[in-house]
Amino acid sequence: MIGIGVVGYGYWGPNLVRNFAETPEARVVAVSDLRPERLALVRQRHPLVEATADAGALLGDSRVDAVVVATPVSTHFGLAMQALRAGKHVLVEKPLASTSDEALRLIDEADRRGLVLMVDHTFVYTGAVRKMQELVAGNVLGRIHYYDSVRVNLGLFQHDVNVIWDLAVHDVAIVDHVLPAKPVAVSATGISHVAGTREDIAYLTLLFDGPLIAHIHASWLAPLKIRRTLLGGSRRMIVYDDLEPSEKVKVYDKGVLLDPDGDPAYQLRVAYRSGDMWAPRLDTSEALRTETSHFLQAIVDHAPVLTDGHAGLRVVRVLEAATESLAERGQVVELDTARLAA
Amino acid sequence: MIGIGVVGYGYWGPNLVRNFAETPEARVVAVSDLRPERLALVRQRHPLVEATADAGALLGDSRVDAVVVATPVSTHFGLAMQALRAGKHVLVEKPLASTSDEALRLIDEADRRGLVLMVDHTFVYTGAVRKMQELVAGNVLGRIHYYDSVRVNLGLFQHDVNVIWDLAVHDVAIVDHVLPAKPVAVSATGISHVAGTREDIAYLTLLFDGPLIAHIHASWLAPLKIRRTLLGGSRRMIVYDDLEPSEKVKVYDKGVLLDPDGDPAYQLRVAYRSGDMWAPRLDTSEALRTETSHFLQAIVDHAPVLTDGHAGLRVVRVLEAATESLAERGQVVELDTARLAA
Amino acid sequence: MIGIGVVGYGYWGPNLVRNFAETPEARVVAVSDLRPERLALVRQRHPLVEATADAGALLGDSRVDAVVVATPVSTHFGLAMQALRAGKHVLVEKPLASTSDEALRLIDEADRRGLVLMVDHTFVYTGAVRKMQELVAGNVLGRIHYYDSVRVNLGLFQHDVNVIWDLAVHDVAIVDHVLPAKPVAVSATGISHVAGTREDIAYLTLLFDGPLIAHIHASWLAPLKIRRTLLGGSRRMIVYDDLEPSEKVKVYDKGVLLDPDGDPAYQLRVAYRSGDMWAPRLDTSEALRTETSHFLQAIVDHAPVLTDGHAGLRVVRVLEAATESLAERGQVVELDTARLAA
Amino acid sequence: MIGIGVVGYGYWGPNLVRNFAETPEARVVAVSDLRPERLALVRQRHPLVEATADAGALLGDSRVDAVVVATPVSTHFGLAMQALRAGKHVLVEKPLASTSDEALRLIDEADRRGLVLMVDHTFVYTGAVRKMQELVAGNVLGRIHYYDSVRVNLGLFQHDVNVIWDLAVHDVAIVDHVLPAKPVAVSATGISHVAGTREDIAYLTLLFDGPLIAHIHASWLAPLKIRRTLLGGSRRMIVYDDLEPSEKVKVYDKGVLLDPDGDPAYQLRVAYRSGDMWAPRLDTSEALRTETSHFLQAIVDHAPVLTDGHAGLRVVRVLEAATESLAERGQVVELDTARLAA
Repeated sequence: MIGIGVVGYGYWGPNLVRNFAETPEARVVAVSDLRPERLALVRQRHPLVEATADAGALLGDSRVDAVVVATPVSTHFGLAMQALRAGKHVLVEKPLASTSDEALRLIDEADRRGLVLMVDHTFVYTGAVRKMQELVAGNVLGRIHYYDSVRVNLGLFQHDVNVIWDLAVHDVAIVDHVLPAKPVAVSATGISHVAGTREDIAYLTLLFDGPLIAHIHASWLAPLKIRRTLLGGSRRMIVYDDLEPSEKVKVYDKGVLLDPDGDPAYQLRVAYRSGDMWAPRLDTSEALRTETSHFLQAIVDHAPVLTDGHAGLRVVRVLEAATESLAERGQVVELDTARLAA
Repeated sequence: MIGIGVVGYGYWGPNLVRNFAETPEARVVAVSDLRPERLALVRQRHPLVEATADAGALLGDSRVDAVVVATPVSTHFGLAMQALRAGKHVLVEKPLASTSDEALRLIDEADRRGLVLMVDHTFVYTGAVRKMQELVAGNVLGRIHYYDSVRVNLGLFQHDVNVIWDLAVHDVAIVDHVLPAKPVAVSATGISHVAGTREDIAYLTLLFDGPLIAHIHASWLAPLKIRRTLLGGSRRMIVYDDLEPSEKVKVYDKGVLLDPDGDPAYQLRVAYRSGDMWAPRLDTSEALRTETSHFLQAIVDHAPVLTDGHAGLRVVRVLEAATESLAERGQVVELDTARLAA
Repeated sequence: MIGIGVVGYGYWGPNLVRNFAETPEARVVAVSDLRPERLALVRQRHPLVEATADAGALLGDSRVDAVVVATPVSTHFGLAMQALRAGKHVLVEKPLASTSDEALRLIDEADRRGLVLMVDHTFVYTGAVRKMQELVAGNVLGRIHYYDSVRVNLGLFQHDVNVIWDLAVHDVAIVDHVLPAKPVAVSATGISHVAGTREDIAYLTLLFDGPLIAHIHASWLAPLKIRRTLLGGSRRMIVYDDLEPSEKVKVYDKGVLLDPDGDPAYQLRVAYRSGDMWAPRLDTSEALRTETSHFLQAIVDHAPVLTDGHAGLRVVRVLEAATESLAERGQVVELDTARLAA
Repeated sequence: MIGIGVVGYGYWGPNLVRNFAETPEARVVAVSDLRPERLALVRQRHPLVEATADAGALLGDSRVDAVVVATPVSTHFGLAMQALRAGKHVLVEKPLASTSDEALRLIDEADRRGLVLMVDHTFVYTGAVRKMQELVAGNVLGRIHYYDSVRVNLGLFQHDVNVIWDLAVHDVAIVDHVLPAKPVAVSATGISHVAGTREDIAYLTLLFDGPLIAHIHASWLAPLKIRRTLLGGSRRMIVYDDLEPSEKVKVYDKGVLLDPDGDPAYQLRVAYRSGDMWAPRLDTSEALRTETSHFLQAIVDHAPVLTDGHAGLRVVRVLEAATESLAERGQVVELDTARLAA
């Protein structure tokens, strides 16, 4: 039985607590939050869990084997480092840290101590993204041409990060997991509309070596919630709509090919193939349950985790570069791929 | 009765011919195309119209008062200039020309000769875009925050231009017509996937002075046809889906405002308003009919046209800058706004 | 503080328990169920609530002021009657009883004892149905022409009732609440496909005095979940889609009128009006919370309830008549409207 | 080259004329209509076709080998009979005639004279319906459980028939073509809302021997156009949405089966299967082109036609019975299946 301590009981914390609480291999020992009304909620829902305003006490609690950090981004590094130093395994809500340097330091600390460091890239554990990864890896799509995602809704504005770190992070993590190559550079644009706040709309282009491109549109200012991703390959193309109640992933047997009979003066010699569409059955388990089990398993087995510190670092580096590019109106920022692969 | 000559009977030409043919104020005198099978089609559908392979003869035909240019982009300038010099009014399919220099020279020529020069920015004449322009101008949306458009489908690859000049041009023209300000710079990224062809996917960000941004995603490589535009203002936001059979324009009474009671440590003091949604009845006339009437009217009345040479120039300048930026992986390209406003 | 006892902790019971548990005016004293694994679940989720297999003990518990019956339909009458005789107020899951005679006897018993008898017609308490009722009552739709509902999905087959009593009951209750008149007769057809089970597909037509019709398609055998209702009036028409995340109710300013200029030889002199569409903002409170509060209020204030025994009776009578008609392949069955109005 | 005469140039006639005009094996000789403005339109669009107000002259024209009847329903029988008697092959717009007796007499006349008699059940020739027929015939769906169709829109009211004969006729023809059995009885309900007009909303249930049911909802009074059909089998289920631009037919690998481990006291022992969804590529040829070619082929080859007089008769008999049942508020009307199979 692994003892769990959760720091932060805001928007996402309750989901983490519930999932660990319902897993037989774990026991939620304590939850900390600075807000008395959140602690009251913990006590009402989980009368047997210690609720405390003192995160330090939780991190030092000997019954706690693993710490879950679910606080604002700017505090991720400090809390995760403190937990590692106290000898705890750590699961950090996305993104892993505020800078790639912080991420690197967490990786080093966990490595040195032989502790599990995992980042909560939740979408990687969904049935939809796992299926997409499987289709890409199995060459069902052919050579990958592009990843294009729209992730927009109205609010919630975060106080310590811009919309890239809040929403685009999900797609950067999916790209990291699903695509057959890693991005080498980033160009981003964006804007802030509310005085004194960070960017609420952003557009990221991830550039790769070779004919592959990824683009993410993230916004807190859209009238509709949209979660739609296009993933195109030379043989087939996917539309992934996370808001569909079922058939979230649709595979289109469509493509283009050079047509030797076309009239070059008027139109390209490009022909179109159009075949069946197919929506594979997806695993409908809750992603967070799959993820928390994966974390617990890694603690027990010393097995590698899918979304480890290095995945967290690669994602943070893209976010960091995108924010930098955005400030320079789209000026491309190179990713130091050697350092990220270390 | 105004005599019309149409140069080019490919994808769009038939629509132009049909609309002028059904307008009582005009008579289609001649149609030219280099392909015999297209001329045969003209003769079958319009037995009383002269079908010729000789564009020069058409341009010199004294029965022709106005020339419509519906040929590949690279030929627009040459044909339009020749027509103007022959004293004909000219309507050019979008985009007006291949470069802003060409566009400027066409404007000068038409001005000097007192001829109508119009560019076929078709969407400007749709009920949907006219309604959006009216709502923006009437301050129904409040201060405009952003324009975001996705215009993707499978093919058709053009042989002489990239996807920016084929698809994004529509949005650049809508932005030019609807938004309260003109863009000052462009950042674009994109990629080509088929050997020997131009970019088939592109992302354009139009930058403005002040808190306004426009973004266009254009692609010939998507498995689905999507035509969806978000237009956000401080008071209301629009979703415009051109593929909806009715209710193409939906106005959401939604927005954000600073909330003085929010907890700054955990979340921004931003509140959300959410009210009714409303889909105004739209004029369902065919846009091209409205446009051809507008062109004929301008010839008769010497009235200004909505999509005149200057609009054509502004649009071409954005496309030109975007193509330049794309080659530099998103490097911002400034638009010489003084020159464009001339 | 009103003491609540809940009989039945199957599909719907947990929602009832949760809502009463979170209402300050009530306290859930006990929950009964025959299945040990359901009682274990009660204990895990609500450690302070008594979980018992003995419904009789619960009904006799002096701490229990009101009993909620959430068991299979065939047991509703027996349990509700026993509760009333024990002096408890009663809320019964839909439908109120298995026959109109049973429903009448429950009404009599509650009346004689001065107890609240309420039926859980949940949809009546949704923001969408309340808005529709308001629009009908306010004459926004004009004279009502029809109500048409499709309520289909895959499963869950009920063991003691057919699909009419499981799914169509929701629409019969909405019709009872929203329409300006009560049905006078029913014609129904349907079929069973799985050996030894009741009808899994049914079609009900409710007939009225005057030019109004209602129709309900209910099925457990559809590949998709559909919840779509059309409500047409002489001035406006509504599309109500309960699966839409927002904008569930859309009001179309459309209609027909006699056109005195039509050519009677070829087509009717009917003209069509088509104006704006409008989706009013809806109250998004959980319907069951509104309903449990309404029940508790009625106990305290002796106020009438919206979905009282008489509403329950009218709905049961329609279900009963529909089942009878179905067995006779659509033969119309009259509703004894005098008896129902009593 | 087969000479074609078309009687009636209203809503559907232009499509028939266009399709025959573009088929190399046919030549449209003449078109008749009583309305001068329609004849003017014929002359504008087809200057080489004779346009006449005199249908009799057309029927007697020796250049006419085959007559297409595209007039109001009440005139179908008279015109078709006159054409057959003049020795012409005949294609009649749906429905074949106003009564089953009329349909029988047309069949007899055509048989006696060895002429082709075909009814324009257009949907039978669509890629979607042909695919559905193929999937049913190939046992891909398993035993067929139900056909359910919603075919509603706003208008157009017909002057000489109710909505059953105008809209439901399409589904009755599809059912006749696709389902593995013929209906034995009909129950229908419906209503008229505009004074002096026929029923504008109708619900038809087609009853079969064995566990199969078909239902059609037809309406001229809906705010939306809906064309959605569910076709359920024991192995797979189809959703056919004719308004989808592509993927009109979706095949769901879903179903139910008896579950021997279910708890009979609380829920049926029914289990659900849920697998992939699949949208087969459809032939996108225009249905009317396929149909007109089929008609011409039958004239040349004396080959049987898919939608012959007998299909026309079976469909008319269902419409007739439905109208009869509707007048009796759903009273079942038996179909004389022996007579229809003759």
